Amino acid sequence: MIILHGVSASPYVRKVITVLAMKQLPFEQKQQMPFARDAEFNKISPLGKIPALQDGDITLCDSTVICEYLEDTHPEINVYPTNHADKAKARWIEELAGSRVTELATGIFFQRFMRPMVFKQDPDEALVEKIIDKDLPPILDHLETLVPATDFLFGELQLADISLVSPFINASYANYTVDTQHWPQLSAFIDRVKTHPIMEPILEAEAKIMGFA
Amino acid sequence: MIILHGVSASPYVRKVITVLAMKQLPFEQKQQMPFARDAEFNKISPLGKIPALQDGDITLCDSTVICEYLEDTHPEINVYPTNHADKAKARWIEELAGSRVTELATGIFFQRFMRPMVFKQDPDEALVEKIIDKDLPPILDHLETLVPATDFLFGELQLADISLVSPFINASYANYTVDTQHWPQLSAFIDRVKTHPIMEPILEAEAKIMGFA
Repeated sequence: MIILHGVSASPYVRKVITVLAMKQLPFEQKQQMPFARDAEFNKISPLGKIPALQDGDITLCDSTVICEYLEDTHPEINVYPTNHADKAKARWIEELAGSRVTELATGIFFQRFMRPMVFKQDPDEALVEKIIDKDLPPILDHLETLVPATDFLFGELQLADISLVSPFINASYANYTVDTQHWPQLSAFIDRVKTHPIMEPILEAEAKIMGFA
Repeated sequence: MIILHGVSASPYVRKVITVLAMKQLPFEQKQQMPFARDAEFNKISPLGKIPALQDGDITLCDSTVICEYLEDTHPEINVYPTNHADKAKARWIEELAGSRVTELATGIFFQRFMRPMVFKQDPDEALVEKIIDKDLPPILDHLETLVPATDFLFGELQLADISLVSPFINASYANYTVDTQHWPQLSAFIDRVKTHPIMEPILEAEAKIMGFA
């Protein structure tokens, strides 16, 4: 049995949960917080990051490394394109989503959700406004040209779609949604991914853990 | 002909140059600086990062995405292990090297090399001391247990070895070397990679560009 370490609300853990669901692989989840001082967990994840995954004797960390491993070992249902050029494009979208997009979206999530709810502190609204008004727009402009008008990035739902939408799910917990007037195609794409039959039950289960349902 | 965009002294560009050499693929290099305000380059690299690569109509960025693409399209000479578990381990080492290890090693490089040489500023020695005395040791302790006593991580030289050593090459330009007393196995491993017949001519060419030879 595969063991997944990490809390469901992490944008990176959500990627792995969705890939496991798409590949119909049963797993047990341990709700591990990131950066916990936990010597046992650090043996699996030397930087303390989540997700980490155990598959028998094999331990892995980093969501991209885990998803590539699941694709290599369970190729019956693909979550990456199979042609080389599209696979490279999908990997780049996953990288862009996991770096700059996540940094900005989780910046909003951290200030407006984690600080008041978990740390009992006020959010830094000046920082949030800078993210929303200055930092995000050029990225959203780029994503608006990247996402398709219908369906998903490579036809069917795959990991690139999930990676790109995952940080916006965190931002939505902090009441941030992409402006439908400015970025109609991206906004519709995010809704399409969130309401896909694979994603919807995952987000419902997550909302319950977060206390929203 | 493959076109590689990026300056040779980048730890990420160096990975791609070495993989191209290992796979015996001819290429043309454009000495592109990162984060330059260059609309043409931003079409290839939306975040302005280096390296970026053009292979005919295909444009790619991010060193890991590029190396995976080169492995997929030119599998005759492998730079990743071919079994799934080792490939996952190699990808994790590349990720660890490209994130925390590079962050710390290039922190030293930026302060002690780039600031005085390029920006005509004094280095922030307090920051450098913090990196060397506090931040690096736990990572070096981990790497000391990870690297082998002889040969390379997966037998022959591969991308994981290059990724791990690349940031230390930048730190060496700032006169930082890993303490051979505290971390003898890592220190010997770094020397072994740097003097490998594939790496040596690349580092000599780079030293010329950097003005060291």
